[in-house]
Amino acid sequence: MGREGEPWVVMKTARAPSNIAVIKYWGKRDEKLILPINSSISVTLDPEHLSATTTVAASPAFHSDRLWLNGKEVSVEGERYKNCLREMRARATDVEVESTGRVIKKEEWSSLHIHIASENNFPTAAGLASSAAGFACLVYALAQLMGVKENYEGELSAIARLGSGSACRSLLGGFVKWNMGQEADGRDSIATQLAEHSHWDDLVIIIAVVSSRQKETSSTSGMQESVRTSPLLKFRAEEVVPKRIEQMEKAIKSMDFAEFAKITCADSNQFHATCLDTSPPIFYLNDTSRRLIGLVERWNRHAGEPQVAYTFDAGPNAVMFARNKEVGAELLKRLLYQFPPSSDADFSRYVIGDQSILESTGVTSLKDIDSLSAPAELSGVVNPPRIPGEVDYLICTTAGKGAYVLDGPHLLDPVSGLLPKKSAF
Amino acid sequence: MGREGEPWVVMKTARAPSNIAVIKYWGKRDEKLILPINSSISVTLDPEHLSATTTVAASPAFHSDRLWLNGKEVSVEGERYKNCLREMRARATDVEVESTGRVIKKEEWSSLHIHIASENNFPTAAGLASSAAGFACLVYALAQLMGVKENYEGELSAIARLGSGSACRSLLGGFVKWNMGQEADGRDSIATQLAEHSHWDDLVIIIAVVSSRQKETSSTSGMQESVRTSPLLKFRAEEVVPKRIEQMEKAIKSMDFAEFAKITCADSNQFHATCLDTSPPIFYLNDTSRRLIGLVERWNRHAGEPQVAYTFDAGPNAVMFARNKEVGAELLKRLLYQFPPSSDADFSRYVIGDQSILESTGVTSLKDIDSLSAPAELSGVVNPPRIPGEVDYLICTTAGKGAYVLDGPHLLDPVSGLLPKKSAF
Repeated sequence: MGREGEPWVVMKTARAPSNIAVIKYWGKRDEKLILPINSSISVTLDPEHLSATTTVAASPAFHSDRLWLNGKEVSVEGERYKNCLREMRARATDVEVESTGRVIKKEEWSSLHIHIASENNFPTAAGLASSAAGFACLVYALAQLMGVKENYEGELSAIARLGSGSACRSLLGGFVKWNMGQEADGRDSIATQLAEHSHWDDLVIIIAVVSSRQKETSSTSGMQESVRTSPLLKFRAEEVVPKRIEQMEKAIKSMDFAEFAKITCADSNQFHATCLDTSPPIFYLNDTSRRLIGLVERWNRHAGEPQVAYTFDAGPNAVMFARNKEVGAELLKRLLYQFPPSSDADFSRYVIGDQSILESTGVTSLKDIDSLSAPAELSGVVNPPRIPGEVDYLICTTAGKGAYVLDGPHLLDPVSGLLPKKSAF
Repeated sequence: MGREGEPWVVMKTARAPSNIAVIKYWGKRDEKLILPINSSISVTLDPEHLSATTTVAASPAFHSDRLWLNGKEVSVEGERYKNCLREMRARATDVEVESTGRVIKKEEWSSLHIHIASENNFPTAAGLASSAAGFACLVYALAQLMGVKENYEGELSAIARLGSGSACRSLLGGFVKWNMGQEADGRDSIATQLAEHSHWDDLVIIIAVVSSRQKETSSTSGMQESVRTSPLLKFRAEEVVPKRIEQMEKAIKSMDFAEFAKITCADSNQFHATCLDTSPPIFYLNDTSRRLIGLVERWNRHAGEPQVAYTFDAGPNAVMFARNKEVGAELLKRLLYQFPPSSDADFSRYVIGDQSILESTGVTSLKDIDSLSAPAELSGVVNPPRIPGEVDYLICTTAGKGAYVLDGPHLLDPVSGLLPKKSAF
């Protein structure tokens, strides 16, 4: 036990990955509880390349809950933060602080204020599910801090879901299903793991980050509008998705890439179809997205069987799955050939993430890109478009593990519980 | 009667308009008979601006059926031409040739070869339903030549349908419905007029012809692929369209522009949604189409009620309906402001068709476009994109009448029945 009355701060830091849906979530049946109109399936991305890191701290010296996102303080008054904090406080237990031996009693947590600092290891603006990683990480870190044990499997995912629907899928690694559930209070609308990432470890993931000229519709308001106005969305949720969920579970369990690719592409396209069927229509894909789809479809047709699958979330970025490392390197070469960086780009920033894929292409400079030859499936095409700078950059990664604790360094000062003056930002 | 044995040629020339669907036709239930999976509704475009003109000729001196399209001879061996010719020959009657008094007997038509010359008054490549106008015109001209009388109302439209589905709607003027029909032989899959064009004559139509970098999927193969692979298309055809047909008929009859606009836009978007739901996905809209939709949606929202409706066929061109002449001029100004011609363009070729709309804008030169001010709904938008040359040209027109006979000049030489050496092309 530390001395009574002495100021103290306890903190925990965790990391949670981003995830990419292969059966899409689009549409809520309950806006407050964030209950979806259909189940969804995602692949968890390697936290090494795409994740949020969050430190949560508690202290009797704190006067209010506070939140710093990527080094900037923002309001924690939104319903989504408040709901997550409330549910976590309600499940707090007696926690013995290791370093001091002090015990924070279950009841104390309801009066202790929380400081939160969170940052992504990828650009927030890139539209790569930063809120999914962020809320999963917040809930996971709070569970560590407050000694929360699940009363049933998936309970934490149901709380992360209150922050951002797809956040529930980011707690777990590998291949994850979000069961839509039936209960009115959402307690069964939880994430479950279909398979570890090690189960299917030859998949390579390449993300093409596409610059957009348009301000995009937020997914929250977009899906509201789709539920309200798209005649096709209800049919999709009720009639199409349940079958695809079954097929996708089977494809993942049996590592059937052809089936996985077929369903992944079809479901991405159907999600964007329901966006277009919304009044007024919502467009997330642009001409660059379209050309990325063309690259993959042309190659797959030429190869006779799927080599690569693509999927797009609520933005123009393509997330592509290559069936193995060799195909991953081939995909990267094709991307560099058809979507070269602008001539003034820094090549070392054009292909980021897992460098092993880039190494196996043999491409090490802008000049190497110029000397790449056209892939076989483009042989009949006169002047295939090669517009430098259409793609901002490429991220190479793989499927990865779920949320985990980091021993440090913390994002908050251990003594003051505030954002350190010298932030990384 | 002319002298026996003397060579003779008889010919007729007709004109038929293009049409634009406001409830879309996409998908056949019978590929040979061109029977659709849902009914559709269209607006006939003024033949002055968008039509095909066709001369058909018969002579015992002709050795085979021949066809010249826009001055170039092409094969007439395709099933679609052969089906139309066969059905028309089967319905031929005794025809007295006015100029000579010669009677061509009903039986003679089956052995007489036909020469056909057809041209459009708009660029064929622009993707403006040239085949609809062309086949309607062919069937209409043959009916004149061969003295075909309909056994039932709409019989000719059923024959035009064998050439190109949407051709059946081009025989009639104004607002036209293509009833999908029930019969296996297609005899009830015919066009009927909902209202004359004079019924709702303040509508203004502006077409933005958009250049496309991509080779587009033909509508014939596109709709086959959609029927085969889109889970959403069947639902659309069976559940969504029947209701919309009813609503659209009512909107047209009561000249309810708000309702007309709402359904027109929603149905165009839903058609393109089913294209996107096709595997592999079909894209007809490009970023320019998207920005044209944005222009209309932003304006309509700002105005509080629909001023303009848009619809897109199997290509990136926008067909826009303005609620009246004043709004038509406002629309043209907005189009010129946001989609100026490239700086080296010939202004007199940038806005074609009905010049009265252009006149009421006061814009007479490229310089006038530069001095246009931003419309009110763009006041909050920083740097609205104004990319010169995104739109190739604009066609101003209105709804118009159906197919009709032209006394001349004919497109074939009256003596030889061949394409004159000095063609317009």
